[in-house]
Amino acid sequence: MNLSELTHPNQLHGLSIAQLEQVARQIREKHLETIATYGGHLGPGLGVVELTLGLYQTLDLDRDKVLWDVGHQAYPHKLITGRYNTFHTLRQKDGVAGYLKRCESRFDHFGAGHASTSISAGLGMALARDQRGEDFKVAAIIGDGALTGGMALEAINHAGHLPDTNLMVVLNDNEMSISPNVGAISRYLNKMRLSPPMQFLSDNLEEQMKHLPFVGDSWNPEFQRFKESMKRLAVSKVGAVFEELGFTYVGPVDGHNLEELIATFKEAHLIPGPVLVHVVTVKGKGYAIAERDQVGYHAQSPFDLTTGKAKPSKTPKPPAYSKVFGNTLTKLAENNPKIVGITAAMATGTGLDILQNALPKQYIDVGIAEQHAVTLSAGMACEGMRPVVAIYSTFLQRGYDQVVHDVCIQNLPVFFCLDRAGIVGADGPTHQGMYDIAYLRCIPNLTLMAPKDEAELQRMVVTGIQHEAGPIAMRCPRGNGYGAPLMEEGWEPLPIGKGEILRSGDDVLLVAYGSMVYPAMQTAEVLNEHGIQATVINARFVKPLDTDLILPLAQRIGQVVTLEEGCLMGGFGSAVVEALVDHDILVPVLRLGVPDELVDHATADQSKVALELTPAQMAHTILQKFNPKPVAIGVSA
Amino acid sequence: MNLSELTHPNQLHGLSIAQLEQVARQIREKHLETIATYGGHLGPGLGVVELTLGLYQTLDLDRDKVLWDVGHQAYPHKLITGRYNTFHTLRQKDGVAGYLKRCESRFDHFGAGHASTSISAGLGMALARDQRGEDFKVAAIIGDGALTGGMALEAINHAGHLPDTNLMVVLNDNEMSISPNVGAISRYLNKMRLSPPMQFLSDNLEEQMKHLPFVGDSWNPEFQRFKESMKRLAVSKVGAVFEELGFTYVGPVDGHNLEELIATFKEAHLIPGPVLVHVVTVKGKGYAIAERDQVGYHAQSPFDLTTGKAKPSKTPKPPAYSKVFGNTLTKLAENNPKIVGITAAMATGTGLDILQNALPKQYIDVGIAEQHAVTLSAGMACEGMRPVVAIYSTFLQRGYDQVVHDVCIQNLPVFFCLDRAGIVGADGPTHQGMYDIAYLRCIPNLTLMAPKDEAELQRMVVTGIQHEAGPIAMRCPRGNGYGAPLMEEGWEPLPIGKGEILRSGDDVLLVAYGSMVYPAMQTAEVLNEHGIQATVINARFVKPLDTDLILPLAQRIGQVVTLEEGCLMGGFGSAVVEALVDHDILVPVLRLGVPDELVDHATADQSKVALELTPAQMAHTILQKFNPKPVAIGVSA
Repeated sequence: MNLSELTHPNQLHGLSIAQLEQVARQIREKHLETIATYGGHLGPGLGVVELTLGLYQTLDLDRDKVLWDVGHQAYPHKLITGRYNTFHTLRQKDGVAGYLKRCESRFDHFGAGHASTSISAGLGMALARDQRGEDFKVAAIIGDGALTGGMALEAINHAGHLPDTNLMVVLNDNEMSISPNVGAISRYLNKMRLSPPMQFLSDNLEEQMKHLPFVGDSWNPEFQRFKESMKRLAVSKVGAVFEELGFTYVGPVDGHNLEELIATFKEAHLIPGPVLVHVVTVKGKGYAIAERDQVGYHAQSPFDLTTGKAKPSKTPKPPAYSKVFGNTLTKLAENNPKIVGITAAMATGTGLDILQNALPKQYIDVGIAEQHAVTLSAGMACEGMRPVVAIYSTFLQRGYDQVVHDVCIQNLPVFFCLDRAGIVGADGPTHQGMYDIAYLRCIPNLTLMAPKDEAELQRMVVTGIQHEAGPIAMRCPRGNGYGAPLMEEGWEPLPIGKGEILRSGDDVLLVAYGSMVYPAMQTAEVLNEHGIQATVINARFVKPLDTDLILPLAQRIGQVVTLEEGCLMGGFGSAVVEALVDHDILVPVLRLGVPDELVDHATADQSKVALELTPAQMAHTILQKFNPKPVAIGVSA
Repeated sequence: MNLSELTHPNQLHGLSIAQLEQVARQIREKHLETIATYGGHLGPGLGVVELTLGLYQTLDLDRDKVLWDVGHQAYPHKLITGRYNTFHTLRQKDGVAGYLKRCESRFDHFGAGHASTSISAGLGMALARDQRGEDFKVAAIIGDGALTGGMALEAINHAGHLPDTNLMVVLNDNEMSISPNVGAISRYLNKMRLSPPMQFLSDNLEEQMKHLPFVGDSWNPEFQRFKESMKRLAVSKVGAVFEELGFTYVGPVDGHNLEELIATFKEAHLIPGPVLVHVVTVKGKGYAIAERDQVGYHAQSPFDLTTGKAKPSKTPKPPAYSKVFGNTLTKLAENNPKIVGITAAMATGTGLDILQNALPKQYIDVGIAEQHAVTLSAGMACEGMRPVVAIYSTFLQRGYDQVVHDVCIQNLPVFFCLDRAGIVGADGPTHQGMYDIAYLRCIPNLTLMAPKDEAELQRMVVTGIQHEAGPIAMRCPRGNGYGAPLMEEGWEPLPIGKGEILRSGDDVLLVAYGSMVYPAMQTAEVLNEHGIQATVINARFVKPLDTDLILPLAQRIGQVVTLEEGCLMGGFGSAVVEALVDHDILVPVLRLGVPDELVDHATADQSKVALELTPAQMAHTILQKFNPKPVAIGVSA
């Protein structure tokens, strides 16, 4: 079987184990080669090659449903469902997506990008199936990391209560999420991995009993009764938690033994009601370097396959926002034991790994559990700590009610640091940090800010720490700063709700927020070339908005442009327009930002071009709106 | 001890059981008398009188922290922490709040109104305590219903992983949330309630072994080893799930036996690490009528203490929105087996109980699990069902990421019905449905609508069911309709994104959304008395907004007022202003709605007066803004 000729996953049905192992090798080769060349998620996919092949031997993907949680481990799935020959376009504009998408393939039965959703969605499909009198199978795969997300546990609680609803949950247990897992469930799974399989334990019990100094005996009813009750106890020991919650527990199974996997899945499909198949896999399997460094090789930029080393980027880059954040926070935390950094399984991505390494006692990883992370912080704030919650913009959506109900209504001084706010590039729609300005701005008591560059980020970290009057949030973009000079210490906090003027001009007022401040300055340069003089304001805060600064200038200049890297509906520009209209300053306003549509995966630069958010494009749009005659200029950045 | 003289809960320390029982009687009397007179939550508080007294015998509330989940069962707590003499102001304007509030009492260590937060917040306090080298106790009380909320499980997963962090979780197990509980955890607890206590089982094992035909024996090392291993297995059986998750399980304890409670709490405080004390209580305890009907007496409007019957309201009222919703949906569901109503433990509140009773197969209660409810619906929509998710506006915050990530990004036809949108009255800040327009409007693919009255609600239910192009949400206020004539069937769907003109006038344009349409009409009447002729638009949809209708009228009339029952930041008025400015229609706009502050508990009418949202007040504000000379008129509705 040559994978490039495979058009349907069912074509793998009936292959021998040896043939499937050959397919597995092809998957790994293609997977490794593609990620090494273009970058992407490496370890998760390599770990589930046999799981995928084994499971699909027992499913008919024309009727049965398979749900991959998160989706970044579904590359083997993609490679055997018609995307082998386009796989080299992975995570690139108009290419194969890095996550699952229903619109990309009819075999992507449920899209995902965030964790812990597969059991809920799978149960929904199973209930729909039963309601409609159909009888297909539903298999929801979930990692041991994602299993600790609250909604996965809500789904297990519900599914375990429905003994007549057939649902297979495949637990892909690799002891990792993106970082090593934390939490009691993880420790419990670890114990199970080390347990002898259920049947063995039970056999062993009888063996043990044989050595006891009984007389006569196995005919003795007292003995039989005792043996039976002991057996029940022993059986309940492995997988007890899942069994008590109504699931039939099967496992643990070696996730790289195709024969065992296929036999187990076949048997498990025969069990009525909810079934949990516990599959133990190795993240990065088959690529020794990734097996050894599972955190480092979760996802990769292009790298050398032989050495595993990342290919050097052509030009040295300024530091990433997350690094500057982590370093600054760590420096402050050294002198302030009240500071605690809190992450939901995203130490590296948020830069909190720097704090973790330097001051582990002032660092908490709660696992994939954003809701808990937020309310835990509220509790800490009640007791005088300065909790700093570092969560991606898109993942804070998971803790939204907690931000409203536990932090803001109680006006507790929690500092939220939202990474990946704005356009995220290759990760695509599920990860775009587009909505945070809109969904946070409406909450009373909350202060919102965004730095124009990495130096201002440093000052905002101090500002956030020193803001004890209530909750405060900072949004930062994905990626690198501008090379603004950094300070080692002694950062001055910023006055709350105050912006700054970066440039003055009488023709048009550009009011920019966060990552759009530098582009606004560049836009002003382009406008200048066309004889238009712009004033540029770095707003710094969307809430409270610096109306003292913005409104008189808007009134005087008479033409306003707002610039933001976020949704236009209810976002920063909306805040400026609200303020203008509320104050009866009726001047034309052009709101530049992300329109009301999903932004697909591409490079961030490509997305900005598509959204017409490059300085040249924005200047063009501004000239079109505010000049009597449209001016034609190039659209490239 | 006379409760009216109690100034500090520690004054109860050292009372005899008989004296405490007398205190319990006083609490129940005051509780019953107050709720019977003024209305409020009845059953939850009655169920935890002894739990509260017993626990507080073992705590020093000047230093130890106690966290009541949800808060509506904390009336006994309020009665012994200085609010006995003001308790008759419960849930009334400027009176004692119906939930916990840090600003109300220094003994309210953490505010709550939503479920499942106490363990997270308590763990935060415990971690802060340890970080700061203090040593107070932390007790987080949680109901068995709230325990199934995902964030409570996230917190247990985290706490169970911290063997050095002392934390007591008190499980108040009454087999109920607001409705009878669903889910595997509930079934598991039920089994535990019926189990003999741990120690008994373990003793029993030895007893059983004694009857076995051993020879010689107890000195035999083989026998000893066997006995030990069997004992471990037996002990793990009761409370196994909690034990496996790292908690020491204690219980079950009779929640109405003060002696047993005090002894148990005392012992449990000595156990290091996370401890779960399983207390079995009876909701409504001590008031036989409430014990018999636990759903009906969860919360009550004023009632006759002898008969338990609600006092008849003085004037007959039009039907509640939730009832009209439930009836209409049920009627549609009778003829459309694809329709499934989904609730997160709020059947009665949302009106889905009507569907539940009529068509139980088309009804799903997932328990307190809003996240799961939303993604389950997404899964059902994938398989061709028409899921209707009925959740209060404030509780949908709990499923926000699921709305974005699982429903809207995938553009799945899920119909969200948000009850209690807008001002909720006596429940106060934690329950105000203020933010849904803002937090939903920014999500692509989502259609948003709100009916002006109960007859339009019927049409919107049909509209939502028939809208297969993507997700759609309807917001309805708490309370009763206007007596608009209802149809039994044959409702016409509304065209998506189209509003209607209700009244024409050339002086000012009132654009109203949902529950503010009737008040807008009344406002127009008041304006008319002042010689101002208003056009009134019922917008029906905030997204897509009917710009074809609104913009030309705004342009022509030149003075615009927006009216909404929701936050002004990013809300409906903001949408109108965005549209006007985007189209360069620069006319003055007055946005009426809820400003950027929390709205405290009071009657809805009182809140509207405080927010200046009565028709007379709004007319006054409009005249002030749009009339050259301010006009003085009365401010009462």
